[in-house]
Amino acid sequence: MRIVVMSGGVGGARMARGFAGLANVELTVVVNVGDDADNHGLRISPDLDTVVYTLARIEGPHGWGRLDDTFALNEELSRFGVDNTFQLGDRDLALKLFRTDAMANGSTLTQVSAVVAKSFGISASVVPVTDDRLRTMIRVGDGWITFQEYFVTRRFEDEVLEVRYDGAETARPAPGVLEALGVADLVVIAPSNPPLSIWPMTTLPEIREALAVHPSVVAVSPLIGGKTVKGPADRVMASLGLPAGNAGVAEAYEGLIDRLVIDVADSDDATSLDGIEVVTTNTLIKEPEAAARLARELMSW
Amino acid sequence: MRIVVMSGGVGGARMARGFAGLANVELTVVVNVGDDADNHGLRISPDLDTVVYTLARIEGPHGWGRLDDTFALNEELSRFGVDNTFQLGDRDLALKLFRTDAMANGSTLTQVSAVVAKSFGISASVVPVTDDRLRTMIRVGDGWITFQEYFVTRRFEDEVLEVRYDGAETARPAPGVLEALGVADLVVIAPSNPPLSIWPMTTLPEIREALAVHPSVVAVSPLIGGKTVKGPADRVMASLGLPAGNAGVAEAYEGLIDRLVIDVADSDDATSLDGIEVVTTNTLIKEPEAAARLARELMSW
Repeated sequence: MRIVVMSGGVGGARMARGFAGLANVELTVVVNVGDDADNHGLRISPDLDTVVYTLARIEGPHGWGRLDDTFALNEELSRFGVDNTFQLGDRDLALKLFRTDAMANGSTLTQVSAVVAKSFGISASVVPVTDDRLRTMIRVGDGWITFQEYFVTRRFEDEVLEVRYDGAETARPAPGVLEALGVADLVVIAPSNPPLSIWPMTTLPEIREALAVHPSVVAVSPLIGGKTVKGPADRVMASLGLPAGNAGVAEAYEGLIDRLVIDVADSDDATSLDGIEVVTTNTLIKEPEAAARLARELMSW
Repeated sequence: MRIVVMSGGVGGARMARGFAGLANVELTVVVNVGDDADNHGLRISPDLDTVVYTLARIEGPHGWGRLDDTFALNEELSRFGVDNTFQLGDRDLALKLFRTDAMANGSTLTQVSAVVAKSFGISASVVPVTDDRLRTMIRVGDGWITFQEYFVTRRFEDEVLEVRYDGAETARPAPGVLEALGVADLVVIAPSNPPLSIWPMTTLPEIREALAVHPSVVAVSPLIGGKTVKGPADRVMASLGLPAGNAGVAEAYEGLIDRLVIDVADSDDATSLDGIEVVTTNTLIKEPEAAARLARELMSW
């Protein structure tokens, strides 16, 4: 079975891991790059790296970086007066350095991502949604800031007043993305933050169109008991004017999905969702076994 | 007393350290950048870093890098098929990354070097000989190679057939270099490799002229007992057609120096050196105390 997972960071990576372990699954993970940034001149692709590290089962415990990494380089940067708030591990930095150098020498992010996935023994295709520049910008009380500023520096405490995706209207899907969507038996929008992790991708006109026409697109809600497991998705959705609960998730993906999967804790939401097929199950997928179970359920429907 | 040390790598750094500890010395270290390279997209300035780490007393035991560094990033690079022969420590890499990023954002190598020296609590001025591109190229049996290829990858085993300094004819001395030479009471050409570490600097026309007209330029021979303490200087000088022993060193610096300091083990060489003042003393300066003693001697003459 050909599966495409549209993935943000941690939630998406966990959903992808659920499929990665299954027999007879050909998995493509299409990953958000709206969070990408340049720190210290290095190309940082947080969501791509979270997916790779999670599929390799070496993901860091806090949603970023690698397990058991060291931070000698990052600590030493402070000597030179460099802002090293964004914690970059030494081994994690090897990947960043490799990517930056390869791209400076003409490789695309797609090409680098394929090499990286293979280097970690990952059999799934891990593909950035685009090789073009795409940046999620967030308007807070004191103006527009980057995703990293909002998420890392300010620890997502600001109210999100508006979101835009610089470059999205003209960005082309990366090689292989439309092809994978075209032949997929099932497209899964992972339990990631809809406005901050998924919309950067679905704002690309060709991605939007491909999802709209695909007969089997299912979104897994990031809400459990009306709240997100991790991160600010619930608050962000509310402040952007979406309805509370899974009605908001359904509206966020209106016209794109054929089915919405919600958690058993939110089964009451099902009654208020018109015009969309709702399935209720256990959506907590922190553990690989739980993710694999959900993946099997998604494939069986 | 105003002192300028013209420095290559280890020998130059040790000579500079000898002066750095003395009272009433205003020290400028002018450093070779002919060995500079780009590894993994990072600007590597081996001689500048050796000088800084040596003055900070944290130099690595093998003539490169920092004491007690770790190598997690460098090891991890091999996962991606990257050649990581050139051992770069994690803390050492912080300096490289800072420099690369600062220069990408418009700082000159001189400006970065000043910040770096200050960051390590060094009071001496540490200045690259030039901010322009200067690259030592070495012809060996199979063609022209860079200094790093010759020295690190091939471990200076090739016979050096020819040397050239790309950019030297048009490179301008970095800000402060000619000024420091102009007001120096004493200019010391450190016991570095004449063709590979000093000539890249003295090939700059303005440097050459400044040394030629300066009334007090002393070179410390890199030879002890006719051999170099470290590195291939003796072999390189021979294969480039210079006379053996200190006659070769004197010829290497002909027209530039007023005095040559040779080691007591080579006192016989003094008889064969015409037209130049020769001073014999103990030139082994591995230990800081020995370097300080030699520095005091140089100042007293």
